[in-house]
Amino acid sequence: MSRTTHKLLTRDKILDEGVSLLMEHGYHGTGLQLILDRVGVPKGSFYNYFGSKEEFGGEVIQHYIAPFIALLDRHLNQPNRPAAVALEAYFDELIGELERRGFKGGCLLGNLMGEIGDTSDHCRAALQEAVHGYRDKLLEGIGRGQREGSFRTDKPAEELADLLTDAWQGALLRMKIEQSTKPLKDCCHYLLGDLFRP
Amino acid sequence: MSRTTHKLLTRDKILDEGVSLLMEHGYHGTGLQLILDRVGVPKGSFYNYFGSKEEFGGEVIQHYIAPFIALLDRHLNQPNRPAAVALEAYFDELIGELERRGFKGGCLLGNLMGEIGDTSDHCRAALQEAVHGYRDKLLEGIGRGQREGSFRTDKPAEELADLLTDAWQGALLRMKIEQSTKPLKDCCHYLLGDLFRP
Repeated sequence: MSRTTHKLLTRDKILDEGVSLLMEHGYHGTGLQLILDRVGVPKGSFYNYFGSKEEFGGEVIQHYIAPFIALLDRHLNQPNRPAAVALEAYFDELIGELERRGFKGGCLLGNLMGEIGDTSDHCRAALQEAVHGYRDKLLEGIGRGQREGSFRTDKPAEELADLLTDAWQGALLRMKIEQSTKPLKDCCHYLLGDLFRP
Repeated sequence: MSRTTHKLLTRDKILDEGVSLLMEHGYHGTGLQLILDRVGVPKGSFYNYFGSKEEFGGEVIQHYIAPFIALLDRHLNQPNRPAAVALEAYFDELIGELERRGFKGGCLLGNLMGEIGDTSDHCRAALQEAVHGYRDKLLEGIGRGQREGSFRTDKPAEELADLLTDAWQGALLRMKIEQSTKPLKDCCHYLLGDLFRP
């Protein structure tokens, strides 16, 4: 394996570990050394991989959200499946996963928007890009659902997508303190299954 | 001033400072010594006031939310004011305050649910109590708004209150990364001003 490939693989492992550590301990509670220890990289070598902790935070945010957008995209692109069905199946899959993980973690974007969304400019920009990317994929599904007659068309799809994005984030926060996925199920039911209907 | 009164006043100052420090640096980023330095209390005396950092976190959470519930209650109890008008006036007041503060902080409950809602049992219980208290006050307003004919009655008030609570939390998170109160204004407009109407 070339040195560059090895470095990229290690970088990827650091980002994987970064996602779980930031999820568990938050941004301030995650020491750089702890991440390197977990990945088995020599002490002090963090800056070979990332320019700063903030740059690392920004990369973790991208690394975290990409698979969710890809999963939602896969759900939306199953042949012969109405978008409204795809959206519900996507959220059901997330809810099942959160139940299996014992309501742990929630959404790293929500956690970091709360903790550092207004204090780190670099992470704020990364969070904005991630949240917009995610919301735009939801918007794509909602827009198609409107054209397919599953969702109301008297409100712009943008409005419904923002509402779903925000209510889902709030429901994820409540999930953690209620130790239950009921807030998540309610959120999907109230919006996708009811208020968004024609 | 008696020793007990003095201790209570100092405790209150520590809690005030705790709110702003937890808001700015998060739970993990707030060192106990920093709080004591700000209040001018001798080093090492934290445990004269609180049994543990978690106990302190729980008390800060209560100390933070009480004035919001009281403010909402005052809005709801202005004579001859429909509950729907009172709710909008309450949220307008919050939005104005967040604009003046440059979109800083957001909601400490949301920030802490994200950061430690699933890792500290003691803080989780305090967050649950705080969020339920706040949501119940919103529920009171929404229920009255339904009886006054301002809000739809085909959904239980509980459902509307949960949705408003969650969407508002999500909108507060987005406010921080968008550096704008537009998400907050949209949230109020979409729900209180539109989807909740009869």
